[in-house]
Order: sequence, then C-alpha cells, then structure tokens
Amino acid sequence: MSILLDSPVDALRQYVSFSSVSADQNFAEGVTGAREFACSRLKELGFEVDLISTPIHPIILATRGDPSWPKLVIYGHYDVQPPDPLDLWTTDPFDPVEREGRLYGRGAADNKGPQIVHMAALARVFRDNPDYPLHITYLIEGEEEIGSPSFRGFLEEHKEKLQGDLLLVSDTGSPSPNQLVVTTGLRGLSAMEVKIYGPKQDLHSGVHGGALLNPLQALMQACSSLHDKEGRVTVPGFYDAVRPPEQWERDELDKLPITEDEYAKFLGVPEFFPPPGYSSLEGIRFCPTLEFNGVGGGYQGEGSKTVIPAEAFAKITCRLVPDQKAEDIARKVKQAIIDACPSAVRVEVELKGGGDPYVVIPPGKPGSSGQESDLMKKAFSVAEDCIESNFGTRPIFLREGGSIPIIQDLKELAGLDSLMIGLFTNEDNLHAPDESFHLGIMERAINSFEEFFNQLVRD
Amino acid sequence: MSILLDSPVDALRQYVSFSSVSADQNFAEGVTGAREFACSRLKELGFEVDLISTPIHPIILATRGDPSWPKLVIYGHYDVQPPDPLDLWTTDPFDPVEREGRLYGRGAADNKGPQIVHMAALARVFRDNPDYPLHITYLIEGEEEIGSPSFRGFLEEHKEKLQGDLLLVSDTGSPSPNQLVVTTGLRGLSAMEVKIYGPKQDLHSGVHGGALLNPLQALMQACSSLHDKEGRVTVPGFYDAVRPPEQWERDELDKLPITEDEYAKFLGVPEFFPPPGYSSLEGIRFCPTLEFNGVGGGYQGEGSKTVIPAEAFAKITCRLVPDQKAEDIARKVKQAIIDACPSAVRVEVELKGGGDPYVVIPPGKPGSSGQESDLMKKAFSVAEDCIESNFGTRPIFLREGGSIPIIQDLKELAGLDSLMIGLFTNEDNLHAPDESFHLGIMERAINSFEEFFNQLVRD
Repeated sequence: MSILLDSPVDALRQYVSFSSVSADQNFAEGVTGAREFACSRLKELGFEVDLISTPIHPIILATRGDPSWPKLVIYGHYDVQPPDPLDLWTTDPFDPVEREGRLYGRGAADNKGPQIVHMAALARVFRDNPDYPLHITYLIEGEEEIGSPSFRGFLEEHKEKLQGDLLLVSDTGSPSPNQLVVTTGLRGLSAMEVKIYGPKQDLHSGVHGGALLNPLQALMQACSSLHDKEGRVTVPGFYDAVRPPEQWERDELDKLPITEDEYAKFLGVPEFFPPPGYSSLEGIRFCPTLEFNGVGGGYQGEGSKTVIPAEAFAKITCRLVPDQKAEDIARKVKQAIIDACPSAVRVEVELKGGGDPYVVIPPGKPGSSGQESDLMKKAFSVAEDCIESNFGTRPIFLREGGSIPIIQDLKELAGLDSLMIGLFTNEDNLHAPDESFHLGIMERAINSFEEFFNQLVRD
Repeated sequence: MSILLDSPVDALRQYVSFSSVSADQNFAEGVTGAREFACSRLKELGFEVDLISTPIHPIILATRGDPSWPKLVIYGHYDVQPPDPLDLWTTDPFDPVEREGRLYGRGAADNKGPQIVHMAALARVFRDNPDYPLHITYLIEGEEEIGSPSFRGFLEEHKEKLQGDLLLVSDTGSPSPNQLVVTTGLRGLSAMEVKIYGPKQDLHSGVHGGALLNPLQALMQACSSLHDKEGRVTVPGFYDAVRPPEQWERDELDKLPITEDEYAKFLGVPEFFPPPGYSSLEGIRFCPTLEFNGVGGGYQGEGSKTVIPAEAFAKITCRLVPDQKAEDIARKVKQAIIDACPSAVRVEVELKGGGDPYVVIPPGKPGSSGQESDLMKKAFSVAEDCIESNFGTRPIFLREGGSIPIIQDLKELAGLDSLMIGLFTNEDNLHAPDESFHLGIMERAINSFEEFFNQLVRD
C-alpha cells in the first residue's frame, strides 16, 4: 500500500491516466485499466477482491474484516464522462497535469479523487491498526456515468452481501474548499433518446421543400412543447409527486457561502431561469428538470448545406426530486413526446433507464426517525467534528442537484442509508473541459477521514 | 476539343473527380481542379477565357464570336455540395463510377453533367460550323452551392459584358428521362445561422440544472415558434408578397407524369405535409418555406452525456416565391427569432445572403409581354421542337422549387431572361448521398442541344 501512503496525488495521477469512459466502446482499454488499478489498491489495503460481471462493465466488490463487526459499505465509480469537446481542454484529459494546486484530468474529481481520499485514509488507519474493527465492503462500479444500467440487476442478485449499517459516499459537491456539505438528498434521473424519421434520405430543400415535414421541425416542435415559456415542464402529471422542501433545508441553504450573483458570474449566464417560485440555488436542489443534453440533425459542418435531413435526435434527461419515480416520469415524458409528434414523421422514444431520487434525514434533525443504527448515528456526528477540525467550519446538510441513481436502489434493496460527504466544488468542472481536483481539499479530506475512521470505532 | 467529341462521359468523369466543395476550405484543391478543367474545355472550344477573382472562388467568364452577332449567355457552376454523410455513399463521391446507365459522384447531376451536355453539343456545332454566328458568353461560377455570395458584386462590376438576348441554363430538374421541363420560375433563398449562447461552458445537468435556461431549449422554442401546427410560417409578414399561381401554371402541372402517391413513395415519407390549401406538388413550386437544414448542440456521440451545453445552433434557409424579397424576408425572420428568445440566453442571427425569386412567362403564354428579343422567342420555340424530336414528348413549362439565386440578379442587372431546360431528375439524389447523372438523358440532351444551337441561327 505504499503509493497510497507515500503519495496519494501520484496514485490519483495514475488512476486518472486510465481513460475509463464508460459510454464509448472505443475506450474499453481505459475502462479495464482503471478497474485493475482500483482492484490493486484494494488488495494492497488487505481487501478480498471480487469482480462481478455485468452486461457492460464489471463491478468491483471487496471486503475486509470480521462479519460480526459493525458494517460499513463504501461506494465509488471507476468510470468517467466522455472528454469531448476535446479542443476546449488546456491539456490532455488523460495525461493528468498539476497546475496551481489542482490536478487536471477527466475524472480527477468525479469520482477518482474522492476514492483515493478514502483509500489513502484507510491506508493510514490500517497501518496503525491492522485489526481495525469495522467490516468494510467496497463497491466500485463502472457504469455510473451511463446511468448504472446493470446496477439494479447486480443488487437484486447480491444484496445480501451489501447488508450493513451505513453507506459512505463521496461523489457529491461542496460550495468551497473551506465549507463542506453533507448531502442529504440526490435527484433521480430518467434518460431517454428521441429519434424522428422523415424522408428515407436527406433531400434537397429546394427541390422538395414544401411537400413534407422536416424532421428537425417536428423534433423541435415536440421538444419545445415540453416546457412553457417560464420554464415549467408541461408534461401532464410531471409535478404531481414533488414534495416541497422542509424549513430546516431552506435554513441550511441560507448558510451557503455563495450569493446568487457570484453563482451567475461563475456560470457565465446573463441571468438565471429557475422554476417559478424558486431561487436558482433552490431550483437545482428542490425542483425536477427536463433537460436537453444533445440535439442534432442535418448539416453540422462549416458553411451551409440546403438539405431536409432524413432524421433528427434529442437526448433528454430529467432530474427528479422526492417523491417522483423514474419509471413513471419516463413513461409520462415519452407519451407527451409521442403525442406532440405529427403523423407526417415517425417517432421513436427509447428509454435509457435512470433511478429514483433519494433523501436521508440526518439523525437528530426534525423529522428523523430515531431508529437509525448506532454506526449511522455515530458517523453523522463524528463526521461533523472531523470536518470542523480540518476545514475550520462545520458542514452544511443539504440536498444537491446531481444524481447517483444507485443510492436509492441501495436504500430500497439493501436498506442502506448514506453519509455523503462532498469533496468536489463547482470550480472542478465536472462533466466539462478542464475537470480538476483541488489538492488542498484532498489533503485535508484524507486527514478528516483518517480521524473519522478512527473515531468511528472508539467507544 | 477531342474529349468532348470523343467521350462526353469521360469528360464528365474527369470533371466530377475534382472535389469542388465550395463550402469547406479543406476542399480548396478540388475547387481549383474543377475550375481549371472547365477553363481547359472552354479554350478547346475556341473561347477566350478570363478568370474574375472574387473574395472566395473565382468566376470563369469566356466569350466566343463577333460582338455584333445575337448574344447568348450560358450559365453553370463548377462547385458542388459537401458529400457528407459519407458512410451512406455506395462508392467514393469523388471517384465517379458508372452503374446501370448512371454516373455516380457528387456534382454529376448538379451541375457538372448538364455543363458537359452544353459543351459537347457546342463541340459538334463548332466542328461542323467554325464560324457559328452567335456571340456566346460562358459564365461558370464557383459559389452557387453556398448561395453565390460574390456574384452580385461581380455582376455590378461586369454587367456590361453580360448584356445579351437570352440566358441558357441547365441547372433545374425534370420529372423523368422521357419528360423534360422548361423551368419558368425559381424560388428565391434567404439563408441565416442562429447561435444561442448560455453558460460560458458545458455544465453538469445535475449540479446546475434548474438554475439556468438550456440553450438547446431556448433554440428549439425560438425555432418552433416560426411555424404553426399545420406548417404555416408564422413570421409576421412572411406571406404578404406571395403571388398566387396562374391558371396555365396549374394546367401545366396537371401534365406531370407523377402522382402524389408515387412521389410520397419516392421520398419515403409516411404522409405529405404541404402548406394548407396546396398539394405537395404545388407546395414545392408555388409556396415559400422556412426550413431547418442543420441543428446541433450538446453531446452528439454514442450513449449519453448529462450536460447543459454552452451553445446551440440552427442553420435556416427560406425558399421564396414571387414577389417576396430575400432581404425583406431575412430581416423579418431574424427579428422573429430574436423576439422569441428569452433574455436568459444570448442570441446571434447571422444573415448568410440569398437571392430573390425569379419568374419568366414563356413568349406566347397568357401574360407574356410580346416584347421579347427575337433570339428569346426563337429559343423557346426551337427548344420545344428539339426536345420533342429527341425525347418523344414536348416539354412542360413549370416553376420549380429550387433556387439559382443569381438568375434574378442577371434579370435585374443585365436584363437577361432565362431559358432553363432541366436535365436532372429526382432519382439523381441531388445534395444527397449517391448523387448520379442519367447517361441516357445525357446522350439525348447532347443531340437536342446540337439541334437547338443549329436551328437557333437558321433563318
């Protein structure tokens, strides 16, 4: 386990150098490389490592400790988002480079950096206490960035191996290197792809224009019918199950060390466009969205080409909040798109999976059950202290806008609630060019987790 | 002039092998090659050849004969459309191949084949009559497929060289190899590109979704506001200047040897979508359109990528009918798009030029002036006879849906009316994969034009 002890940054550099893009088969070698790297680190830490095969990318399942001990499960993912647009990267996304206290590369923050934090902390803990009395199950999947299509099947088959007292996750964000957030909710996700087919091939827009419906026109009419002018989703029933935020959640949000103005400047938008009745910072946490991630059809090159294209597509994802259900929303959006398409074109809507939203009420907060496991109660409390002692401030407890579709599945099928400690920030450019991980956070987080793991087993 | 006499098909093969894509600078060599090939043929035919430089691709201007003779101008273009999508071509678009009586390659029909027809006919005429008593001006441009942006400037500077009695053009279509059309009108064109800018870079749709307006959503809402559900263009004033078709035009259309059913089958569409009140065959001739030629933004690759893109674009062209004006329509559409864009994104609409629609009433048809030049009167009459003697049927006189933006400019600035004899058919796949030219039409057309040129100078 020398690299995790000697230089966690070098370990991260190596991990990021594997181009583990799960969405694209051209990156198969990078996916395998990242998986093998993670397995090697776990073996060095004394874990027994299994690879569970799935229809796409295998899941790493590793265990250490006596089954009679309190049980902690740790989750991560070894896959990353596609790197394009490549020309907007300052340096090669898979040749990680350190600049001004950050390590740049695809996946440095999402999710390889936080994984190295956990592993490096455990390396110190195990060095000092080889018989560390917690049964730890490590779960690292390779399909998170494509919506974890194999995870639920895996879970149904192996859920007994994942029974435990708490799930530890660091795949969420914090507002700044000095203010961490413990994430108490994640939005769900419903993904789909719309394809509209018109003429059997691209046509000359002069010779044939006026006779037929342009698939791009049909696509844009169907897609734009899904929102009203104020940005509300108009799909029938879309908001039916949305649960409004609790007052303590709004209070915690007020502690965020960021103003709406700073946030607008960071995004570079002329103005915000939150759902009516919400601020921008509320919108991303408490409201569902229907977002177009990619739309295309017809001529994409330089200059002009006067065609009516044969087909057009839209890639859509909805972010969901409690108590929306991913399957229900997918079905409703699909039907709304089909209903909005005229019969002069042919429409296909392929559902691409997703996951339900997740929410956990921290032990002791208004509305908590009091029935939480001892490990869970202790973990939430100890985490606050260890973070304060290393970062100078106590963490804020907040829902966030992103999705980890399998967290709710783990709750539903294995009964696991999650302690999610956010280690990346907006400046890390997740899913975007020039992704990076803040090395100051990395160092303080390793210290925090070393304390956290040690205090967790003290009486 | 041997290749034009010995093997017009070989001449066409050579001409097509030059990849003269005017829209894309990567094809600069092919553009130069095609231009030099055309110049060489004209020199062989005894023309004095000038190259007129423009901001993009030079214009070929060549003359032959005594300036005191009746003056014919012949127009063509040596540039072609981009070949993509390349994977849908059966063979290389720039390595022309003969299959089942057709020559396949980008530009084979649009416009290189028809040019070789004219030149091969003239080669025979000049061989038999070296002092052929017509002053011919050959005009071959290289920017037709990008909307002839330099042509009007060229015309304003050189219009005195283009004074004449008639313009001969073969850059229009006919319904079948046995039924040619003399085109009496062309739609105009207004081209523009819309760009919508949102956040300064692509964003994670979970972390930030709900705070801002997705540029794709804004683009699709703006674009889809330009048509109503029945397909009418909703831009204020768009239809104000549209002149309804004459009765004789509808009568000529009835002679077309194609049914709506056959046309739908040819296009491969489930049903037509003509403007309300028109059939599909009328729609492409008598009605203006607003067409999306290319739309894009966000992730275009395999699988999914959950981003909110920083920008999105739409390439739009309007086809115009008499008496719409290209500049007027461009201005109105641009304003409608800007008006439809919320202030939460930044919008740019770049006008890309175009041309006004053109219409000519054949001498003797209801509504003709009777003031046409002798050469024009003779040409329309002789053309009918020569076509009938080679194709077995008299041509139909019809407006068509395509645009040759400079035909109206030549009318306006040089006073030239056009005789447009269509030599390509729908099966030629113009602007699409597997473009080809029908070699049977080619042979009969060369014979027709040989007769036409000879009869044109007989008393």
